[in-house]
Amino acid sequence: MYRNRTCGELTIADVNKQVTLAGWVARVRKMGGMTFVDLRDRYGITQLSFNQEVNHDLFEQVNKLGREWVVQVIGTVAERSSKNMNIPTGEIEIIVSELTVLNASKTPPFTIETETDGGDDIRMKYRYLDLRRDAVRKNLELRHKMAFETRRYLDERGFLEVETPVLIASTPEGARDFIVPSRMNPGEFYALPQSPQLFKQLLMVSGFDRYFQIVKCFRDEDLRADRQPEFTQIDCEMSFVDQEDVLNMFEGLTKHLFKAIKGVEIPDFERMSYTDAMKLYGSDKPDTRFEMKFVELKDLTEDRDFVVFDSAEYVGAICATGCASYTRKQVDELTDFVKRPQIGAKGLIYVRYSEDSSLKSSVDKFFSEDDLRKWAERCNAKPGDLLLILPGETEKAQKQLCELRLEMGARLGLRDKNIYKCLWVTDFPLLEKDEELNRFFAKHHPFTSPKAEDIDMLDTNPAAVRASAYDMIINGVEIGGGSIRIHNSELQKKMFSVLGFSDERAEEQFGFLMDAFQYGAPPHGGIAFGLDRFVSIFAGLDSIRDCIAFPKNNSGRDVMIDAPAKVEKEQLDELGISSKPTN
Amino acid sequence: MYRNRTCGELTIADVNKQVTLAGWVARVRKMGGMTFVDLRDRYGITQLSFNQEVNHDLFEQVNKLGREWVVQVIGTVAERSSKNMNIPTGEIEIIVSELTVLNASKTPPFTIETETDGGDDIRMKYRYLDLRRDAVRKNLELRHKMAFETRRYLDERGFLEVETPVLIASTPEGARDFIVPSRMNPGEFYALPQSPQLFKQLLMVSGFDRYFQIVKCFRDEDLRADRQPEFTQIDCEMSFVDQEDVLNMFEGLTKHLFKAIKGVEIPDFERMSYTDAMKLYGSDKPDTRFEMKFVELKDLTEDRDFVVFDSAEYVGAICATGCASYTRKQVDELTDFVKRPQIGAKGLIYVRYSEDSSLKSSVDKFFSEDDLRKWAERCNAKPGDLLLILPGETEKAQKQLCELRLEMGARLGLRDKNIYKCLWVTDFPLLEKDEELNRFFAKHHPFTSPKAEDIDMLDTNPAAVRASAYDMIINGVEIGGGSIRIHNSELQKKMFSVLGFSDERAEEQFGFLMDAFQYGAPPHGGIAFGLDRFVSIFAGLDSIRDCIAFPKNNSGRDVMIDAPAKVEKEQLDELGISSKPTN
Repeated sequence: MYRNRTCGELTIADVNKQVTLAGWVARVRKMGGMTFVDLRDRYGITQLSFNQEVNHDLFEQVNKLGREWVVQVIGTVAERSSKNMNIPTGEIEIIVSELTVLNASKTPPFTIETETDGGDDIRMKYRYLDLRRDAVRKNLELRHKMAFETRRYLDERGFLEVETPVLIASTPEGARDFIVPSRMNPGEFYALPQSPQLFKQLLMVSGFDRYFQIVKCFRDEDLRADRQPEFTQIDCEMSFVDQEDVLNMFEGLTKHLFKAIKGVEIPDFERMSYTDAMKLYGSDKPDTRFEMKFVELKDLTEDRDFVVFDSAEYVGAICATGCASYTRKQVDELTDFVKRPQIGAKGLIYVRYSEDSSLKSSVDKFFSEDDLRKWAERCNAKPGDLLLILPGETEKAQKQLCELRLEMGARLGLRDKNIYKCLWVTDFPLLEKDEELNRFFAKHHPFTSPKAEDIDMLDTNPAAVRASAYDMIINGVEIGGGSIRIHNSELQKKMFSVLGFSDERAEEQFGFLMDAFQYGAPPHGGIAFGLDRFVSIFAGLDSIRDCIAFPKNNSGRDVMIDAPAKVEKEQLDELGISSKPTN
Repeated sequence: MYRNRTCGELTIADVNKQVTLAGWVARVRKMGGMTFVDLRDRYGITQLSFNQEVNHDLFEQVNKLGREWVVQVIGTVAERSSKNMNIPTGEIEIIVSELTVLNASKTPPFTIETETDGGDDIRMKYRYLDLRRDAVRKNLELRHKMAFETRRYLDERGFLEVETPVLIASTPEGARDFIVPSRMNPGEFYALPQSPQLFKQLLMVSGFDRYFQIVKCFRDEDLRADRQPEFTQIDCEMSFVDQEDVLNMFEGLTKHLFKAIKGVEIPDFERMSYTDAMKLYGSDKPDTRFEMKFVELKDLTEDRDFVVFDSAEYVGAICATGCASYTRKQVDELTDFVKRPQIGAKGLIYVRYSEDSSLKSSVDKFFSEDDLRKWAERCNAKPGDLLLILPGETEKAQKQLCELRLEMGARLGLRDKNIYKCLWVTDFPLLEKDEELNRFFAKHHPFTSPKAEDIDMLDTNPAAVRASAYDMIINGVEIGGGSIRIHNSELQKKMFSVLGFSDERAEEQFGFLMDAFQYGAPPHGGIAFGLDRFVSIFAGLDSIRDCIAFPKNNSGRDVMIDAPAKVEKEQLDELGISSKPTN
């Protein structure tokens, strides 16, 4: 062992001890006849002290060290004269008696500090140096802890982690698969799993009863800012349970993680139906750290000849507490915000409820102060508040209002990263209609069970059937989702028929699962969490990228190792494929 | 919840309690006016009892149940009249008052019993039913426990589990990669990792200091009986360590697993150099559950005009204790055994050391009893023993003798699956020469460090250079292996030059690692364990297949889901590849 202590553990209690440390030179400070080195390892930083008078040779040696050199030192712990109370080792330093250079370093292309001078691109190219930074390393430490505590919690409750295969078969339904040519089976391909869904259901058929797996999944999608082609799920399934059992188990897991890792006690989760979530927040993943719920005003706006409202299916308002004092400029900013193409509103209507109780709006031509007062009352507004109103086609206007609400929440500082609001959204619609194709799609997946009381409507009004499906939302981010599955072959057949699958196609795509279900499938259901996103919430990050050791960029490239890359022609020949680049 | 107790937990202490159970009908036994059902779940089997006189309707209902139906029952725990002391629940039964069929089942294609009537092929096709069998399920429970205890042990020692990417770049060196066409980067391919080797070394450069990962790896090899295209490694790496530190840490892990899971205390591991292992056992993974070490006799066989020995580079013997009484037929069997093409010996020479102290051999024409007695003495043979002797070219003869030794160990019952002998084999040669290509290859991989005291020989006698490389062997099975890595750029360059890499080619293949090593790489080393094999040793299995939930067959096929499979032409078009099957 090249050390007997780490750079994060020595304190005033260790004074006079002889220690051996090893680590990286974070900083060299030369102050006349003294040189101080900050030695860094994963555990912290310890100051090394070199005195020209005491040891001239050593002093010469230390002054040649560069940033990020790897050194080993032997020395004695001493109390510092000028203490740094911001770090645990800040009261001591090491009076070094022996210094060994274990490896030199070129000057790194950016500073290895919490606040670095390196841009995104250079940091990704030299990710191995970026990972030396405290800020990034802490995220991966957090990720390790979350994964470990998840396993501990589930293990204690009788869950078995079972590894399901990575080389499986492609299913045309759903997102695009990555495929892998098989050399031993020419002309055939494996696919990488988008989730272990089918396998975990088969494990339930096998009687495995409580399964989980922390597992890599793959999706060949055009990447948005916060998507990765490979991502990690905490994948779980249970037998002989109903929805309530699943929610309780995984609410418990989440509370455990908050408690064990952040020391935060989370109260019982709020629950909200999909319908309410859409009505009150315009989103199936509402940020419930703040209220500002939607209020419908349509009925109060009629008979005033204001065509914008009259022609609108929906008129919705939010009440921004204390914002009556917003300047013209601020209101214009909000208007510009909702008119951005990504949001797409035509304009924004506001009502100022001034401190003197007068009400003024951008639609004063059409509505009297009395009209406005009725709106304000319905919104529970108080003098000093500002109503923001969007009209339009219900779904679209709600989505726009949702964006505006989030923006106002941010402006008002109501989206504090240190506050955690957890929520179950339940009772999702089972089906989604593609109007163009005039067919239904499963909103979750084709194995999701309808709610027992809605099954009859599969024939009469499929769009109204609710699913036993649920999402876990934390601070407006979807952390996980799942459902109770169909375990009855007849109901599954019915479901396929509603989805417009021929028996043949159902058999072709899901044959082995359908077969399995005929050999005694138990009632079962489960959930899957996005670990990357879960960690990012705990880390207070907006992006998942910095919770991943070696992420890919928006083109799916790993710029550090330069993957993907061309391969030798012989390799393709052996696989029986040829590549025909489009450019 | 469909149950409040499991089928494995009720005992005499629960008599008179009302319980709800759910599970699979393992067996229905009709005995006149009584019917008994064995209800099975993951936790055990509980007997259900139905009395025609007490509840006629229920009795009718139960008699319609078939094997593997899924049922829920409510009933009262009662003491059995005829007890089965072989199972934990064998003293009780449930007097059922309510029975609900949760799902019917077709008759399964084989019996779901420890000893099933199903052949390999049918069991693989219906793997989800095979997994219901106690014997198979227990292996996966064991696997879960081993993985969990591994994580616990490493977590307690400050190791961080870091996920490395699955979509990486192909490296031509080593075994064949599986590759994955990239849609977003036409003409380019990802590769699936054969191990996270490069990434774990980069993590060391990043200062992660104690890394592990239980991770899927991939190798597109022609499959032998006990190989899978995807397999799982316990992959570990440490910084600021020498070989001794790594051996101690992972000897500790292994002892912990044996203790925590099997309750077995393993003494400190034996250590053996590669040279000794080859000399004494003819194998770098000797089964040390029994002695029967090789004894070299060449010098004792000279000047007797026996051309077989005289022309042989090597004459080696093993002493089979108590086998002097072997019949002619038994000796012929052994001769046939070593003459099998897989082993390839020309014949077998034996010396019988009879109980009356006389010595007889198959080469009596050439050697006197005195000669034979000298051989026997050197072998430490006693009256009653049998010497088995193989001559030939050293390496080949040792390999043949190794097979013969293992066969004799098996015949003599010396390879007990309940005895565990753990061993470190160390000091492997750094290089292996390919005589045909007249170049050296890295025996381990090009990053393995030579032993410090052998570095000078890299120039003068590369074949003699020993590596800081080590394998962990349990009962003759290689469970893991690793090495101290080169962290010095100059030494790494030297190594590449010995391996005949041009600077250019080294740069092309390992450029980013070489770059990384210039930014302060710490001394580091590690190890990787084959989890599948580790579990199979604990489970007492000869094959890894039954330690894997959904294994592939020898053609790399998953016969249950029928993967790999053809994909739609559109899918290939989108990826810019075309498939040209060879048939």
